[in-house]
Amino acid sequence: MCKKIEGGVTAAKGFFAAGIYAGIKNVKKDMALIYSEVPAVAAATFTTNVVKAAPVLWDQELLKEGNLIHAVILNSGVANACTGAEGKEANEVMAKAVAEAMQIPVRSVFTASTGVIGKQLPMDVILPGVKKLKEALTADRDGASFAAEAIMTTDTTKKEYAVSFQIGGKEVKIGGMSKGSGMIHPNMATMLAVVTTDVAISKELLQEAVSEDVKDSYNMISVDRDTSTNDSLFVLANGQAENITITEKNEDYHTFCKALREVNQELAKKMAADGEGATKLFEVLVTGTKKKEEAAMLAKSVITSNLVKTAVFGNDANWGRILCAMGYSGVMFDPEKVELSIQSEAGKLVLVKDGIATDYLEETATKILSGTKVTAVVTLTEGEESATAWGCDLSYDYVKINGDYRS
Amino acid sequence: MCKKIEGGVTAAKGFFAAGIYAGIKNVKKDMALIYSEVPAVAAATFTTNVVKAAPVLWDQELLKEGNLIHAVILNSGVANACTGAEGKEANEVMAKAVAEAMQIPVRSVFTASTGVIGKQLPMDVILPGVKKLKEALTADRDGASFAAEAIMTTDTTKKEYAVSFQIGGKEVKIGGMSKGSGMIHPNMATMLAVVTTDVAISKELLQEAVSEDVKDSYNMISVDRDTSTNDSLFVLANGQAENITITEKNEDYHTFCKALREVNQELAKKMAADGEGATKLFEVLVTGTKKKEEAAMLAKSVITSNLVKTAVFGNDANWGRILCAMGYSGVMFDPEKVELSIQSEAGKLVLVKDGIATDYLEETATKILSGTKVTAVVTLTEGEESATAWGCDLSYDYVKINGDYRS
Repeated sequence: MCKKIEGGVTAAKGFFAAGIYAGIKNVKKDMALIYSEVPAVAAATFTTNVVKAAPVLWDQELLKEGNLIHAVILNSGVANACTGAEGKEANEVMAKAVAEAMQIPVRSVFTASTGVIGKQLPMDVILPGVKKLKEALTADRDGASFAAEAIMTTDTTKKEYAVSFQIGGKEVKIGGMSKGSGMIHPNMATMLAVVTTDVAISKELLQEAVSEDVKDSYNMISVDRDTSTNDSLFVLANGQAENITITEKNEDYHTFCKALREVNQELAKKMAADGEGATKLFEVLVTGTKKKEEAAMLAKSVITSNLVKTAVFGNDANWGRILCAMGYSGVMFDPEKVELSIQSEAGKLVLVKDGIATDYLEETATKILSGTKVTAVVTLTEGEESATAWGCDLSYDYVKINGDYRS
Repeated sequence: MCKKIEGGVTAAKGFFAAGIYAGIKNVKKDMALIYSEVPAVAAATFTTNVVKAAPVLWDQELLKEGNLIHAVILNSGVANACTGAEGKEANEVMAKAVAEAMQIPVRSVFTASTGVIGKQLPMDVILPGVKKLKEALTADRDGASFAAEAIMTTDTTKKEYAVSFQIGGKEVKIGGMSKGSGMIHPNMATMLAVVTTDVAISKELLQEAVSEDVKDSYNMISVDRDTSTNDSLFVLANGQAENITITEKNEDYHTFCKALREVNQELAKKMAADGEGATKLFEVLVTGTKKKEEAAMLAKSVITSNLVKTAVFGNDANWGRILCAMGYSGVMFDPEKVELSIQSEAGKLVLVKDGIATDYLEETATKILSGTKVTAVVTLTEGEESATAWGCDLSYDYVKINGDYRS
């Protein structure tokens, strides 16, 4: 039994966190540190963007080396992407500062940055920031909460989730935080997210679990179809739960994967719901395809369509746009066998049967679309597979936020 | 020498056109007819969307049969897509009405519809509309102009272009009209466009010329990444210019192709500039790739990025978003060798050299971005190929127009 608990990255045993204001941004918290009291096995996935930020390049090296990981240092305000040799140097100096402060090896420190592309890290505030973070580290609720706050950019809410479950009679916890609101279209990776767990597991299985998991969590959300230069998900497992170390795909492994799925999907959905300018979470469930990837392609094509997103914003049941977006997804299907319904806290309604409109009432549709979590359910008859994607509507505020993000 | 001339689909010899108000829409013109006094060889390209409108299915049959084409009937207001058997029947009835009115074979009549998806054609106004169109047919400027007006939906301006050139001492003309403002992301096809020419050319070469041409014209524009269910480009060539019929890829063929390119690119650019809510045309030129397709993929990735489009709207030189969009385009390149400059009627400025920011002034950049035609020039050092794509900015009005398009 996996149950939701209060907390975030410090929910699992032996993890400490802090979030502070260093001075990269104008007023708000802008640096966070996550620390495990013992070195943790680590897994991670990163953006597939050819243009990769300096911290992503650094983390990929560490992951390849197979190092145990002791800490993750994160900043918001500046993405340290497209910053050349100076940016790489600055990233390493930041990692070194953490290593010195915490007395740990520099190559056990993951780094992550998020914010404006093309600007250099302001080292004059970053270095004092690292010292402040060390002072502020705590294993309690506040540490996690402040850290989740410190990685926000255009996010309007901090994003945390934690669960507790049993493995072999031992209580295991997984807790995480994420950020992301714009430039969200993760691809084999995600925006910034740090998930910590006290489970004991081998590095190989942890990476496999994480790589599988992102396909159904972070890779199934999109705010604006823009895959960022900084997407990173880190999962640290420090073994403090004292379960028998998971080294094969046994029942314990599957229990862990299920719990990890819940944490990652919830963190991913929080990002979609908090998409820039979003007024609602938009979920698309596609069932009845031959392959799972086809259902995923169809669902993602619908949640990323600007025309669908603006119609959802306007509470307009313009279902033709949903079929249109399915049609250009790259998946073959029979348009004359599509069933489409919408649902939200305000009810449920079938809009399309056999590819054409049912006799539904527009005002009922509008009422349902006015909900805060709107789901479109597409049923095909090609096979048995299904997938769910999460996005949000496209509002005036998206344009406002992004028309002049930097000023 | 190919020179721009006044006019549209009636510019070439032997073509007639009309545009009228039939009553499909509330007030504005909503039906158009193009007619060639002699049967014309025809080429066409259509949407690749799996969901295809009834007229597209009809036209594809006609094209496959290789019929000479006598007329094109078009309506706006209703797309006749996702309308099942009833929609197909209605489309054929519309073609038959034209055939009877004009005394021509029904299978020589192309059909095209644009507007709301999922609604049936109102045959009670369509059939009288066909009769009115017959009465109104004219070879003069007005016929073409009214026809161009009658196919508009959310377009704010009608789109026409015509050129005149010589082949073997004969004057040849090509004239065309197009419509398109939203749901614009043509893929091996385009939105509605009809191009007429009096050139004498074989059907095979005409189709080849057209299929080649769309790769550099209609397929290089995007307003919102949504490939429609109705995209259609028709090119009719009726031979009235009396040049020696083009049956091989000789100099005449290339002269014709060059003129066709000009007409189609100009019509395509007019669509991009009139994108829903657009305040400016946004052009992206990518040079220095190994393959032409790579340059095209990069250019299209940039013009379709919502984050780039909102920054262009806000006159914000957030160039990191351009590099980011290039990075997820699917094309490999060295981000540290990118040069990027912007230009418009207000000047030219290099923003990025060797992948990092130059010492440019933000206020100069803002001034350039405030132009009505903004071009971003990306220079890579991978090879010799290049491509240009056209799009527009993303403004509040795009959201407004699409938040409640149907009401």
